Amino acid sequence: MVGGTHGNERHAPWLLEHWRADPGSLAHHGFALQLVVGNPEALAAGRRYIDCDLNRSFAPHRLADLHQQSLEVLRARELLDCHGPEGLEPALLVLDLHSTTAAMGNSLVLYGRRPCDLALAAGIQQRLGLPVYLHEADAAQSGFLVERWPCGLVIEVGPVPQGVLRAAICQQTQAALEAALAVLAAAAAGDLRLPPRLVVHRHLGSVDLPRRSDGSPAGLLHPSLEAADWRPLRPSDPVFIDRSGCPVPLGAALPPHLPAQETYWPVFINEAAYGEKGIAFSLTTRESWPVPQLWLADLASLSRRLQRGAPL
Amino acid sequence: MVGGTHGNERHAPWLLEHWRADPGSLAHHGFALQLVVGNPEALAAGRRYIDCDLNRSFAPHRLADLHQQSLEVLRARELLDCHGPEGLEPALLVLDLHSTTAAMGNSLVLYGRRPCDLALAAGIQQRLGLPVYLHEADAAQSGFLVERWPCGLVIEVGPVPQGVLRAAICQQTQAALEAALAVLAAAAAGDLRLPPRLVVHRHLGSVDLPRRSDGSPAGLLHPSLEAADWRPLRPSDPVFIDRSGCPVPLGAALPPHLPAQETYWPVFINEAAYGEKGIAFSLTTRESWPVPQLWLADLASLSRRLQRGAPL
Repeated sequence: MVGGTHGNERHAPWLLEHWRADPGSLAHHGFALQLVVGNPEALAAGRRYIDCDLNRSFAPHRLADLHQQSLEVLRARELLDCHGPEGLEPALLVLDLHSTTAAMGNSLVLYGRRPCDLALAAGIQQRLGLPVYLHEADAAQSGFLVERWPCGLVIEVGPVPQGVLRAAICQQTQAALEAALAVLAAAAAGDLRLPPRLVVHRHLGSVDLPRRSDGSPAGLLHPSLEAADWRPLRPSDPVFIDRSGCPVPLGAALPPHLPAQETYWPVFINEAAYGEKGIAFSLTTRESWPVPQLWLADLASLSRRLQRGAPL
Repeated sequence: MVGGTHGNERHAPWLLEHWRADPGSLAHHGFALQLVVGNPEALAAGRRYIDCDLNRSFAPHRLADLHQQSLEVLRARELLDCHGPEGLEPALLVLDLHSTTAAMGNSLVLYGRRPCDLALAAGIQQRLGLPVYLHEADAAQSGFLVERWPCGLVIEVGPVPQGVLRAAICQQTQAALEAALAVLAAAAAGDLRLPPRLVVHRHLGSVDLPRRSDGSPAGLLHPSLEAADWRPLRPSDPVFIDRSGCPVPLGAALPPHLPAQETYWPVFINEAAYGEKGIAFSLTTRESWPVPQLWLADLASLSRRLQRGAPL
């Protein structure tokens, strides 16, 4: 269980401290939990990161490149040395707890199509109805923490400003996490029945603000798109207003590599930390996938290993 | 006109750039405006400040103490050398444009009871109905930028997360600013009629989260107080929840120096930047003051000097 991967997202570190002080306040189903602050230096500084984004620092080539000595790459290596699948206290599964300024509600983010992750997401979606954002195939955004563990996903809750602590965001985070632990416990006990289908929002790409030649923004997000995460968006819908106040439709703002769709489902709209990444919002396509037996078998096997003592 | 006094409040710098590129986009009534980014280094870094809060760096003893060499104190001296009342391009009046994570709406903040400031606030309140927060007599919070100019106030708009740009917040900021300029133009022309009364929310003090001996928070803001800025709050109302989830009423959280009141009016509730200042929210008392003729006379005199060419 990792919180504070970004140092200005304060809810998960607050919860970690709370659960440490009072283990009975989390229904952990007997799993041996490791409660870890991802980036303690950034948390102390109240900043997302010190040198670079820790949650983009887990790409194997960066971890292996000894010229990479940023605080966050060092911390990524340390986390793997301690808690990685071949670490001193090996963990099989990681749940990385985040918050966002976007109105994502309580949601799950998966990186790629690992059967274990998909089974866990399907089980949580069945219990709580949480939307799932499947991030994959984006060369511009890689090196996420959960990718380095055999199984894992991100719990992403918002909207909440950076640096602010809200009770409701803590409660939503804990509800998603307890649902995850309940799914794992049911899988280990052989009691888990997954739903016939999983609804995923599959990442297609990201859209940046209009910019001038010097890189400064030449427009603003259109007010109708504020807090419209997970809602359908068509190419004729306005997404920006330009410097003269005119609306810019999605169709005119789409990067050429994005596949044409009648309807997109936007996520991470106006996330504060993504301005510097050139992301005003990301676009997904909403798909309903059948849940094959293999997913459940994989998760059941992993859960039994977890309950035999390999810590979560 | 100053924006970006805090580098992670992005709306005002955006507007300054917009007005510079297109002066016709601001109804400036012929006033000679100086458009100034308060803290360019912090803005570039996307942080509130680099060394210390610029908007607490204008206390005369800090400005005069040559041992004070933080980036922000140096910048405060530079702003005064350039634009202060005895600077190279002297300005008589300053409008400092801020945003907040608190649900303050579009509001005005005054520091002390200068007749000019009060007249300007009364004129804006008459036009737009904006609430006024009168900050005074708080030794823990001093050294505000606008205090070093003969007249000036803060336009404070929220809620918006740090680092996020929202069109609606830009529009509210511009509306308040244009109302201020229209009031000044009317005063200079001898056309200004002030309302008979000004409603102020007078600062009484601030309340911190419950904390442990190591300084870490031992509670959260009560959900019923989220976004309840400017709404009445009584001593029996819950303001925090403690670690075990129990509500803490305001009466049990009040610092001893705060005057007893039947009703308080809270402001800056859960402002992200105030955690480090030990402020979970501030308390005011709501008062309706008669508007004396002196206020108008002072503002009219200042406005005429402004229109004779002394830049704003």
